[in-house]
Amino acid sequence: MIDRLTEAIRKTGAPVVVGLDPMLDYIPAPICSDAFAQAGQTLEGAALAIWNFNKGIVDAIAGLVPAVKPQIAMYEQFGLPGLEAYKRTIDYCHEKGLLVIGDVKRGDIGSTSAAYAVGHLGRVRVGDSFLPVFDEDFATVNPYLGTDGIRPFLDVCRQEHKGIFVLVKTSNPSSGEFQDRLTDGLPLYELVAEKVAEWGEEVMGSVYSNVGAVVGATYPEMGAAVRRLMPKAFILVPGYGAQGGKGSDLAPFFNEDGLGAIVNSSRGIIAAWRQEKYSSFGADAYADASRQAVLDMIEDIRQAVG
Amino acid sequence: MIDRLTEAIRKTGAPVVVGLDPMLDYIPAPICSDAFAQAGQTLEGAALAIWNFNKGIVDAIAGLVPAVKPQIAMYEQFGLPGLEAYKRTIDYCHEKGLLVIGDVKRGDIGSTSAAYAVGHLGRVRVGDSFLPVFDEDFATVNPYLGTDGIRPFLDVCRQEHKGIFVLVKTSNPSSGEFQDRLTDGLPLYELVAEKVAEWGEEVMGSVYSNVGAVVGATYPEMGAAVRRLMPKAFILVPGYGAQGGKGSDLAPFFNEDGLGAIVNSSRGIIAAWRQEKYSSFGADAYADASRQAVLDMIEDIRQAVG
Repeated sequence: MIDRLTEAIRKTGAPVVVGLDPMLDYIPAPICSDAFAQAGQTLEGAALAIWNFNKGIVDAIAGLVPAVKPQIAMYEQFGLPGLEAYKRTIDYCHEKGLLVIGDVKRGDIGSTSAAYAVGHLGRVRVGDSFLPVFDEDFATVNPYLGTDGIRPFLDVCRQEHKGIFVLVKTSNPSSGEFQDRLTDGLPLYELVAEKVAEWGEEVMGSVYSNVGAVVGATYPEMGAAVRRLMPKAFILVPGYGAQGGKGSDLAPFFNEDGLGAIVNSSRGIIAAWRQEKYSSFGADAYADASRQAVLDMIEDIRQAVG
Repeated sequence: MIDRLTEAIRKTGAPVVVGLDPMLDYIPAPICSDAFAQAGQTLEGAALAIWNFNKGIVDAIAGLVPAVKPQIAMYEQFGLPGLEAYKRTIDYCHEKGLLVIGDVKRGDIGSTSAAYAVGHLGRVRVGDSFLPVFDEDFATVNPYLGTDGIRPFLDVCRQEHKGIFVLVKTSNPSSGEFQDRLTDGLPLYELVAEKVAEWGEEVMGSVYSNVGAVVGATYPEMGAAVRRLMPKAFILVPGYGAQGGKGSDLAPFFNEDGLGAIVNSSRGIIAAWRQEKYSSFGADAYADASRQAVLDMIEDIRQAVG
């Protein structure tokens, strides 16, 4: 799967992923009121609003970027209807030729991680059938439980040609509380990065591994450090845009081949229509505002990374 | 919520939680074949088998224990139908007077953790409505992202009188890979335990906090250490039974008041009918075998903890 991602980045010239993390606040009022008129101020109504909103964005950005990253929490908070919108979004993105990184941050003891791996990236056995479930192309994974929480994901990645991104250094302000703690002189996130490199050897693509890492744009020096520790791991970089990461912060995440990283922006793209900069589009043309924000982001990264 | 849990433990005399983690292999063949006959070898068929199986167990154990702990991964792997069975199980357990600990191990950056907190423990806003979603009583939470990934859960716990159990030292063999790393002479899990105590101060019940911790029965010495670090935190103890933890390992997790811990068993209870010890029940009476396994577990813990 990492080879498909690399190819799609080359083709689009955009090491960019659009985070489909719809909050109801990001959705223009008419879309919400139409959905509520149809399905009520219910979980179903919220899910319908999200789906209609997402569809507009996906139609506007398909072809510009290689991948999207729906954050499952934003769907899960609306229960079963929300998760149905999550699945529908995944399937629609696939139809449109976009790769899908499920930002699920799952991770548990071995037998439980196996269930998550199967449910998100693999096929689950029911009687004699093996059925795809959520069927994302990549999933994000939490490493706190250690190797035996990761191994089932490696097994599924190998069988199904899928990939994972392991949380190494997250973009949030308090990520250092545990992740930066020094142990034998090394911060914890570097130990995790070393493990990412080790796990990655087992599921190599042609150049990069199907085991990547999440490292926040908000911590560029740390990005440089882990870039060296795991040269074959792709870095999924959240935190660009609304969280404070700038284009000029991004160079350390990339390798000399101009690859090795893919930068996510969520709010900065999908809620672009609410920004002063894109206000001329108006709420009705929210998807066009998102498209322009993607083009601007691609240009910003091109200038920074070259 | 921790006060309700404490009260329910006193009433049942059982600091025991039954893990509702149904794998299809645990389900007697006739239940599966009936479900497949009705809904096919599909996700719906699997979910129906799980639900019918769970219902039998819950009917057999209600009144004996204070709480159940469904592991969401075992439902999520069957997609939307599986998650519908998860929700149905939660609601049915509530009807039967059981508290529900959602073993979801969620955790993300602040705004995303807020969505998880709302979706699992709180109420989500849709227009002018505030709607309960999965509505577990407690949820397990992953601490890797630090305080700002935890804070939204604290806020929801305060508003909704709910609780969380933060992963401190998990029961799996490789949990030490990161959790045991020494930093300033202290293992990481002790630092997390100190944070659990700190976070817990904000959402105290009458004696114990609504912020508890997960510490595996497989690591009793570590249980003793963190017990001292967070005297007001309830410890949710997985790993008893099938994972190797014994009754005699459990004393260090409890306080002198005989409270402060609740021990989970999943496979050892719900798949009891497959054990030599309970084979006389037969597959048809799988729920009676589970009931007996619960009674035996309660007795084992009573002898060990006194």
